[in-house]
Amino acid sequence: MEAIKTGITVSALAAKAPKGKLEKFSYTLPAIGKEEVDIKVAYCGVCHSDLSMLHNDWGMTQYPFVPGHEIVGEVIRCGSDVKGIQVGDKVGVGWFTGSCMHCRHCMEGNHHFCPDAEQTIVGRHGGFADVVRSHWSWAIPLPGGIDMAKAGPLLCAGITVFTPLVSAGVRPTDKVGVIGIGGLGHLAIKFLKHWGCEVVAFSSNPSKYDEIMQMGATRVVDSTDAGALQQLQGTLHFILSTVNVSLDWNTYLHCLAPKGELHTVGVVPEPMSIPSFSLINGERSIGGSPSAGPALTRTMLDFCVRHHIYPTVEVFPVEQANEALQRLEEGKARYRVVLQHV
Amino acid sequence: MEAIKTGITVSALAAKAPKGKLEKFSYTLPAIGKEEVDIKVAYCGVCHSDLSMLHNDWGMTQYPFVPGHEIVGEVIRCGSDVKGIQVGDKVGVGWFTGSCMHCRHCMEGNHHFCPDAEQTIVGRHGGFADVVRSHWSWAIPLPGGIDMAKAGPLLCAGITVFTPLVSAGVRPTDKVGVIGIGGLGHLAIKFLKHWGCEVVAFSSNPSKYDEIMQMGATRVVDSTDAGALQQLQGTLHFILSTVNVSLDWNTYLHCLAPKGELHTVGVVPEPMSIPSFSLINGERSIGGSPSAGPALTRTMLDFCVRHHIYPTVEVFPVEQANEALQRLEEGKARYRVVLQHV
Repeated sequence: MEAIKTGITVSALAAKAPKGKLEKFSYTLPAIGKEEVDIKVAYCGVCHSDLSMLHNDWGMTQYPFVPGHEIVGEVIRCGSDVKGIQVGDKVGVGWFTGSCMHCRHCMEGNHHFCPDAEQTIVGRHGGFADVVRSHWSWAIPLPGGIDMAKAGPLLCAGITVFTPLVSAGVRPTDKVGVIGIGGLGHLAIKFLKHWGCEVVAFSSNPSKYDEIMQMGATRVVDSTDAGALQQLQGTLHFILSTVNVSLDWNTYLHCLAPKGELHTVGVVPEPMSIPSFSLINGERSIGGSPSAGPALTRTMLDFCVRHHIYPTVEVFPVEQANEALQRLEEGKARYRVVLQHV
Repeated sequence: MEAIKTGITVSALAAKAPKGKLEKFSYTLPAIGKEEVDIKVAYCGVCHSDLSMLHNDWGMTQYPFVPGHEIVGEVIRCGSDVKGIQVGDKVGVGWFTGSCMHCRHCMEGNHHFCPDAEQTIVGRHGGFADVVRSHWSWAIPLPGGIDMAKAGPLLCAGITVFTPLVSAGVRPTDKVGVIGIGGLGHLAIKFLKHWGCEVVAFSSNPSKYDEIMQMGATRVVDSTDAGALQQLQGTLHFILSTVNVSLDWNTYLHCLAPKGELHTVGVVPEPMSIPSFSLINGERSIGGSPSAGPALTRTMLDFCVRHHIYPTVEVFPVEQANEALQRLEEGKARYRVVLQHV
């Protein structure tokens, strides 16, 4: 790619080793590619995947490591061949910053399945920084009127829980369960409220119950109460699990109505143990999904602005990134932490 | 229900204990119910579930036990309130002989999910007999021109593998795998050929390969060849497993294209062990299904007659039922055994 600008220095926060504290860190971006944009970061959400990467839980972290993949900001520089975006546009960037644009998956609109997709914080630096770079296709134009301070988490947490509702064809007349009401789960409840569904929230934290009901749940079920789960047997059309711990999956399978699906967006440590009878009886299934391509992300953002769907956030100045990460790690976030860049 | 006829004696073959030989057995049917029909059995397929029930593998067999749930024959008696069927009609009966007709599932056309559904060989006597009784709704009218000698297995084996193709929305442009080419799998291949699909048959029995290709497979893959499975990675839109043994499910999951489903109709002994990453990456799923309701069964029969889709059968006189069962048990059936009643 032709260089049109060189020597851009980025001010960031990076960890130098697994579980290290974030410290000030500068790096120089190479010349911008023809199809790339540079974005001045306004806000960046803090996702549990940032923690997993910081700790090198998935064995693919490169240090120094700059977290951050729930980014909203303003385009400050465009390569010569950028399409559909101009300097000054407000955009959002999530888990991906690039894909090949010509493989079958990209051509089908599923750019997130591209085998050459570039991930924002894998082998490159993320949004705990004043500037982040992306291919134009993954710099998602934000709809007018969006609340910038709350929009960042929609680009990862939001699209992660929105996608399965679309893929599974969840209908307004469905009764839907959500397991784990944290950064992802609380957004799922807000989406489902505006989807028209009856929403059953599974949570083991009574201190959240009032808020969960205010978010739009029809009822909250204590996920540690075997009797309550038993009563739900055969009733739920779709269950979305957002937790990253192993559960008794078979119990939740039995909460499904015939043709129902248990869908996980959380990576759980042990393989899920699934009796074939539980699938065959009632034509049930288990699925999972990552995020989505740019087109569905735009659709989600339009839906959010139309219905005023935003995460419930706690905003920290970017300088307090370490405190923000600690709050997330301790399970204290209500319900998503966002870092504000000045 | 009002009695309109009493004292009908049925000549059947029954086992008196688990794994017992079938012996001549007579029983008397009670007065026919208003909504019931009696069917003179012409042919009855032999399904692996008959063996499982004969052996009491599922702990629900009542003895004396009369197997047989792939029945075709002629209606010889109708209760006063039977709908849509007359004496002399050719009908088929599969796994079910009745359902409540008024619950949500029945009203939705999914009579097979009815909690009160009556199963042909569970707590009642099946089709290894000269007469079998059914509610009219589960006595499926056979389309004109159907080959009676081969139609029986369509009512269980056929609908079991037909249903997931419909439910999963398998498209003619899809590449589909079938695991296990026996009574169920060989029918799946014949359906998929006429579905327009590219069909990959997984089999560990080279003596079947030529026949499998003749049935309509695009290619046969040796399921014990790890390298061949590796080459299929990411390519199959749907995989139908018909086996009742535990496999390395994760290997088959990795053969799926994004959004692909691995679907089992076989009951396998151990819980399936499924890493969540394998579901999340590529939005894959695992499902299962039993059979279907009467409406979809009719649709299947129309499809079979239109395309001349029938099981490859070996016909035995009903007197040789023990030899037929033994042949099935030894894995020698090519590909479905049918008993003929004189």
